[in-house]
Amino acid sequence: MAISELRKDPVVDRWVIIATDRSKRPHANHRTTETDRDEPCPFCAGREAETPPEVFAYRDPSTPADTPGWRVRVVPNKYPALTGLGDISLAKDSAYVTLSGVGAHEVIIESPKHCLSMAELGQGQVEEVLRAYRERLIALQSDQRWKSILIYKNEGSAAGATLEHVHSQLLALPLVPREIDHEWRALRSHYDTTKRCLYCEMLETERADGRRIIFESAAFIAFCPFASRFPFEIFLMPKKHSPAFDAVTDEELGQLAFMLRQSLQRLAGIVDAPLNYVIHSVPLREPTRERYHWHLELLPRITKIAGFELASGYYINTVAPEIAARQLCEVAL
Amino acid sequence: MAISELRKDPVVDRWVIIATDRSKRPHANHRTTETDRDEPCPFCAGREAETPPEVFAYRDPSTPADTPGWRVRVVPNKYPALTGLGDISLAKDSAYVTLSGVGAHEVIIESPKHCLSMAELGQGQVEEVLRAYRERLIALQSDQRWKSILIYKNEGSAAGATLEHVHSQLLALPLVPREIDHEWRALRSHYDTTKRCLYCEMLETERADGRRIIFESAAFIAFCPFASRFPFEIFLMPKKHSPAFDAVTDEELGQLAFMLRQSLQRLAGIVDAPLNYVIHSVPLREPTRERYHWHLELLPRITKIAGFELASGYYINTVAPEIAARQLCEVAL
Repeated sequence: MAISELRKDPVVDRWVIIATDRSKRPHANHRTTETDRDEPCPFCAGREAETPPEVFAYRDPSTPADTPGWRVRVVPNKYPALTGLGDISLAKDSAYVTLSGVGAHEVIIESPKHCLSMAELGQGQVEEVLRAYRERLIALQSDQRWKSILIYKNEGSAAGATLEHVHSQLLALPLVPREIDHEWRALRSHYDTTKRCLYCEMLETERADGRRIIFESAAFIAFCPFASRFPFEIFLMPKKHSPAFDAVTDEELGQLAFMLRQSLQRLAGIVDAPLNYVIHSVPLREPTRERYHWHLELLPRITKIAGFELASGYYINTVAPEIAARQLCEVAL
Repeated sequence: MAISELRKDPVVDRWVIIATDRSKRPHANHRTTETDRDEPCPFCAGREAETPPEVFAYRDPSTPADTPGWRVRVVPNKYPALTGLGDISLAKDSAYVTLSGVGAHEVIIESPKHCLSMAELGQGQVEEVLRAYRERLIALQSDQRWKSILIYKNEGSAAGATLEHVHSQLLALPLVPREIDHEWRALRSHYDTTKRCLYCEMLETERADGRRIIFESAAFIAFCPFASRFPFEIFLMPKKHSPAFDAVTDEELGQLAFMLRQSLQRLAGIVDAPLNYVIHSVPLREPTRERYHWHLELLPRITKIAGFELASGYYINTVAPEIAARQLCEVAL
């Protein structure tokens, strides 16, 4: 039996995962904003027994699973929002729709050392983290139950992290979530009308304008989006139209690691902020998947999500992206 | 000239208010979670000169405006996200759409004393706060430029408050924000199909079921919604179909004040959490406005909005609303 369920709001398109087991997480329901630095950390090398057995790792080939010797380690979330047991079943009771809480929820532990920020990791380490994302995406998308897979990072308690040891998460879902679905519809609709990708057009506009661009590599561009929700929000986007993150080459992953690391370092040069990032990749098994354009959205949590944002779905941003991009460019690394 | 602008995301329906003046607010861009308690507070009685001149107040009739003697005081926001100057103009540059930052942004100061929480205020005080909301709604909705007016509270720094003195805010907008628009569309569509209000049907289901109901008055019901986004989320809803908050009677306002105060006290009996509430009222000048059903959504910010929520538009809630309602009922007041 699934330990959680997905409930649809009877009025708006908003699903909520009711996952009562997660309230057992360390610090899950406290008001404290920083975890206790002296507590033993279950993500540190040597404490492998405190997590569920690993499903993937980059490790010294002479070391067995679930022992030290790893550089990046992927484990099922100990307090999963969704679990892989059982079939997807939909129940309806008057206006109330429930879906069984079936999914996959994994944690990517990004370093055996107790680092607090991805900005501290070396180029090779970040590259292996991104490669682990790709491998897990490829492995999980063969399960026909999943409709989309989100890969995201919560760094800092105010950004939703319950453990401070540097990590990210993967959630395979039995549905395509609203924000990805809206983006996906907009891209398809624009293509149907113009035969062009809206993100490709946007990149042309950005490169012609230049004010919001931070830096580029051969394959990627880093810029502050025109309608940035948060101060110093950064998009990392492949310049060449490309629908899915799992198709990135090793060469591209190296560039992306460089871009991501430098973005985090530039950001850290301005403000010590909690942050999230999310990889937007095409929903699974979509016949017109070529219309999507994958990218990474880096969201510094400097301003708070308040009543206005929750009520409206809109944001108030106190730093114009043109100013943010200029400041990010000026950081001495 | 407007000091801010509204920018539409080129892909999804998401507007962002770029309001760079707001970064001058006290504590606006800091990572601190609590304001300094020793600082002088511009919302306290006796410091009226530190806010813009009041636009409305409940005060001793013998006292002049902008002096002590008030019980509830409404002032323009000193660092407004939008201002009332100028006309609404739309500009388009390739895929980028901008709207001039025209609107009204007011602060409702809920007590002359430096209280930190609305739960501390007396029945009469909360009643006057709600009455002030109604008066400002009525006054502002005659301005033909506004399409919707949001009234909301940010209590606690993690919920977006930059000043701790008990207050709420009003934002009149030149557009109907996405979340309200989606709700409004769903209510109209359901009415067109069934000739019934979806919220009225939901209340019937809730009352027949009973597990999520906390308490009732003659005119209102307090319940934890089926798809609660946050632990202990509470909706206060008029039992009788009613589209607009500004049509509430004095008698109903008294009941609502009682319900709101008791909800806040019950919540405080379980957890000391930052919180938001938002009044959902029908968008302005809608010909089919009778289809809407106004209500208040109280959102305790116990769990954090993390990468998953930002990426998906969905939520993970660790306390089932049936459990939350039972616990809220059991609090001894």
